[in-house]
Amino acid sequence: MTVLKKVAVLGGGSFGTVIANLIAENGYDVQLWMRDQQRADQLNYEHENKRYLPGYSLSEKVVATSDLQSVVQDAELVFVSIPSQSFRDVIKQAKPFINEGQMFVSTTKGIEAKTFSLMSEILSEELPGAQVGVLSGPNLAKEVVAKQLTATVVASESQLLRSSVQTILHSSYFRVYASSDTYGVELGGTLKNIYAIAAGLSAALGMGENTRAMLMTRSLAEMSRFAVCMGANPMTFIGLAGVGDLIVTCMSPLSRNYRVGHALGEGKTLEEAVEALGQVAEGVNTIKQVKEKASEMQVYMPLVTGLYEVVFNHAPVAEVVKMLMMNEQSTDVEFVLPRGDI
Amino acid sequence: MTVLKKVAVLGGGSFGTVIANLIAENGYDVQLWMRDQQRADQLNYEHENKRYLPGYSLSEKVVATSDLQSVVQDAELVFVSIPSQSFRDVIKQAKPFINEGQMFVSTTKGIEAKTFSLMSEILSEELPGAQVGVLSGPNLAKEVVAKQLTATVVASESQLLRSSVQTILHSSYFRVYASSDTYGVELGGTLKNIYAIAAGLSAALGMGENTRAMLMTRSLAEMSRFAVCMGANPMTFIGLAGVGDLIVTCMSPLSRNYRVGHALGEGKTLEEAVEALGQVAEGVNTIKQVKEKASEMQVYMPLVTGLYEVVFNHAPVAEVVKMLMMNEQSTDVEFVLPRGDI
Repeated sequence: MTVLKKVAVLGGGSFGTVIANLIAENGYDVQLWMRDQQRADQLNYEHENKRYLPGYSLSEKVVATSDLQSVVQDAELVFVSIPSQSFRDVIKQAKPFINEGQMFVSTTKGIEAKTFSLMSEILSEELPGAQVGVLSGPNLAKEVVAKQLTATVVASESQLLRSSVQTILHSSYFRVYASSDTYGVELGGTLKNIYAIAAGLSAALGMGENTRAMLMTRSLAEMSRFAVCMGANPMTFIGLAGVGDLIVTCMSPLSRNYRVGHALGEGKTLEEAVEALGQVAEGVNTIKQVKEKASEMQVYMPLVTGLYEVVFNHAPVAEVVKMLMMNEQSTDVEFVLPRGDI
Repeated sequence: MTVLKKVAVLGGGSFGTVIANLIAENGYDVQLWMRDQQRADQLNYEHENKRYLPGYSLSEKVVATSDLQSVVQDAELVFVSIPSQSFRDVIKQAKPFINEGQMFVSTTKGIEAKTFSLMSEILSEELPGAQVGVLSGPNLAKEVVAKQLTATVVASESQLLRSSVQTILHSSYFRVYASSDTYGVELGGTLKNIYAIAAGLSAALGMGENTRAMLMTRSLAEMSRFAVCMGANPMTFIGLAGVGDLIVTCMSPLSRNYRVGHALGEGKTLEEAVEALGQVAEGVNTIKQVKEKASEMQVYMPLVTGLYEVVFNHAPVAEVVKMLMMNEQSTDVEFVLPRGDI
């Protein structure tokens, strides 16, 4: 078993804080980098993240600071929980302090605009000597900090990285499974936001349990079809980072993506839906990026296409649903029976 | 496109009635065999199945009768919706009236005690000249008859059977996907009853959304692992008959299997749980049969083993859950990264 001497987490949002706390509760010292020193001081003084996880007390072994160099230098394992818009910037800032062989694990789900890069790809580009991995799964931060039984997936080509993450995060309520399909695990976490919008939309239309199950299953088929064209393993989508994360996201009416979909289903425009939410939902941008990529790669994605028409072109929801239902009937799982070969 | 002249359904339970009604609403005459002529007369007179689907009016093109010979003779396509305990008996009774090449589609989910035969296997054994298929998916009968958007899977080696079923059942609210993995589709429908018990159990223990998603995903992994050892295609479990059906069954607190699990989670014994339910839940027997088969085939099924201990050996639920969590950590999807190779 690996003994790690220095472990760090970049990003003091809810998920970064939860990861740092899991490590600390397992008896390790952990350094948590936050952009704002005042908030770092507050966390160190009160052992609570007042902004993102109010009411939950954190281990005293979590030590926050805004000094990036002191956090990343000589850390054998670094978790990165930085929002996708500033992910590359923070890594560029950290780069001068990083040596060959350090391990970096992204927990962020998103696609970089223009490049279509996932976060682990940004890590590999910016830190070519690093060992890279991702962590993804059905992990609502508030349930993890409340010690609800939870499982997650660490994916990496590096066996050392996988086993180090398993060792450092595993506890009586947090279970860590391993995968070698980094791209598939990461893409699953990203794409599911699209389908949470669809789930919210169908709920607003009063659809039943058969319809919800159908929608989630077809979402999964579409996600895996796209992912396979991008080089992932379709079997990854049968796991925690595929169907597991999809279940949590599509069932949780509190998710931002679900709420945008619900508002659209009530007949609101995208502008009205986003205004009501007060912030942009990640899935809205993901629809656009994936729609473009799917056209370019000629991947059949009827749900993404339908959602794109509803979200960006004011297409009437009922007509889009009808179109989806009346589509040429096809195969259940095209890896079993190819489309067209019915 | 095939033109079918005579179509039949055996079994006037809720699902058989729904299938007959779907066919009739598509403009076909359909004969529905029911064991009891009085109930058949009632259905023909009132166009309603008072016992299993009270309050839903049926098409006048559904004609019920207890005359098995007149129903099956010369029918090109026969759906069989008979409970598993009497499935083989009814097929034996029908056998003398059946000719080479007729198509039979089972909608029944269950395992025959002692033989471990699924219903399509019984059809193939008893009617060696028939073309055989199955229909399975997230299909709550009451939602189908209420015209909620629904999708299902027809699985068969016969292309003619698959396209005939698609033609005859497809409508604006009922979508039929095809698969060639008959065994996988059928086994998915059968095994999910086991995991509905686990879902009810965890709900009774107050577990959160992370736990539910984890449990459902690990259920899916276990189902597909078992199915693959039995000769099915693992990708089938990413489809409607796998994850789709699992979602509906584990989310629906009204299912009998879920209710038995919930009672066990409240600390009741199996005897008390079954007594409170007033009837046996299919999943209870399936646990036993699959547990034995898994031991015989040496398939790793920790959830089935844990459930078996809780259901049949009065093992304390909390201890079993702890055992499951503390198990050696392993791979997320073992078709991606083999167990042991973390």
